[in-house]
Amino acid sequence: MAEQVRAIRTRQAILSAAAKVFEEHGYQAATISQILTEAGVTKGALYFHFQSKDDLAQGVLGEQDQRILVPERATKVQEIVDMVMLHAYRLQTDPMVRAGVRLTMDQLAQGLDRSGPFVRWAEVVTVTLRKAQEQGELLPHVVPEETADVIVGTFAGIQSMSQAVCDYRDLAARTSALVRHLLPSIAVSSVLASLDLAEPRGAAVYAEALKAADALELAAAG
Amino acid sequence: MAEQVRAIRTRQAILSAAAKVFEEHGYQAATISQILTEAGVTKGALYFHFQSKDDLAQGVLGEQDQRILVPERATKVQEIVDMVMLHAYRLQTDPMVRAGVRLTMDQLAQGLDRSGPFVRWAEVVTVTLRKAQEQGELLPHVVPEETADVIVGTFAGIQSMSQAVCDYRDLAARTSALVRHLLPSIAVSSVLASLDLAEPRGAAVYAEALKAADALELAAAG
Repeated sequence: MAEQVRAIRTRQAILSAAAKVFEEHGYQAATISQILTEAGVTKGALYFHFQSKDDLAQGVLGEQDQRILVPERATKVQEIVDMVMLHAYRLQTDPMVRAGVRLTMDQLAQGLDRSGPFVRWAEVVTVTLRKAQEQGELLPHVVPEETADVIVGTFAGIQSMSQAVCDYRDLAARTSALVRHLLPSIAVSSVLASLDLAEPRGAAVYAEALKAADALELAAAG
Repeated sequence: MAEQVRAIRTRQAILSAAAKVFEEHGYQAATISQILTEAGVTKGALYFHFQSKDDLAQGVLGEQDQRILVPERATKVQEIVDMVMLHAYRLQTDPMVRAGVRLTMDQLAQGLDRSGPFVRWAEVVTVTLRKAQEQGELLPHVVPEETADVIVGTFAGIQSMSQAVCDYRDLAARTSALVRHLLPSIAVSSVLASLDLAEPRGAAVYAEALKAADALELAAAG
């Protein structure tokens, strides 16, 4: 058990180091020896967890989907809003999430398959939109797969513009503007009227999700 | 006159070379001597036109706003749709536009101010939205500056996702989905009903714009 904990910690340290090196140098220019130096682990330890630079990048890319989950909501459209707003909040506050997103958006990273995060996010949103559809929350013309792609793609751009213009300082405001612009063509009006699309929502969902995760961990331990 | 033409050609050759080198290596790793080799010009010629690597990058970034303009439309919302769709079409077909966009989206290009294209695009869209507002095309709650930022930011993400997922093959379809999702919260219904938001629009606008540019050039020469 102690060994397993140590292995998880080592893996995490390597991923953090990789995130930092990719962020500083770009995927193309980054080298495994830079990541080794940054992580302070042996070559053997690194290759035990990751086969290659590509494998390390996929590890960093994967970190943005995991860990903190949005609590279930009765209104599934609100659940999607909460996913987007929570992700925006984590982008502002969590270096690993930021590194994953930058790598996803690194159009210069040749040979690296960056489609994973887009595709995985789109799948999660599609599933939630289907539930929303079953509950009668969506306008009749909505095609869940198409709308999910629009939501994921547009958020990717909003965060990129916010980073370029002011290093994410206005990301919550831009995210709120995004959902206010998209949802009138997605949800029926009674659902629209019930949604919370305000800027502070991301921080509130984050606090709520952390609490839920802590409770879960406590229950598992006890 | 001949000298002026030569200078313009040299500048263009240097910019094309810079675009290619930035696209291959990323802004961070690219060097002026790589650009010199690629362009096949002397150091003196390069420094006559551009002071630094940053200056070269700004030149490449600037190319995406210039050159081909959307013909004026009676309906200003259609004019905005045409700008977006033309840009999508040029992204698929013009290497210089693609290089400019990749540089704009290069979140790893430290020290390079990438806000220019976002800000300039947002200004053009804001001005056109204001005209649309004066003509009664917009819903009453629309704030042109905010909506312009949403349009520019969301398109940036749609193109990025399309590139990551299938190297732009589905960009026209994604762009059409984007405007169909955004416009119902922007334009009044009578305007919505009059719009052409179909996939082939970008190619058609491009052909039209090229024809108009040729006619203008002919008139200037004659």
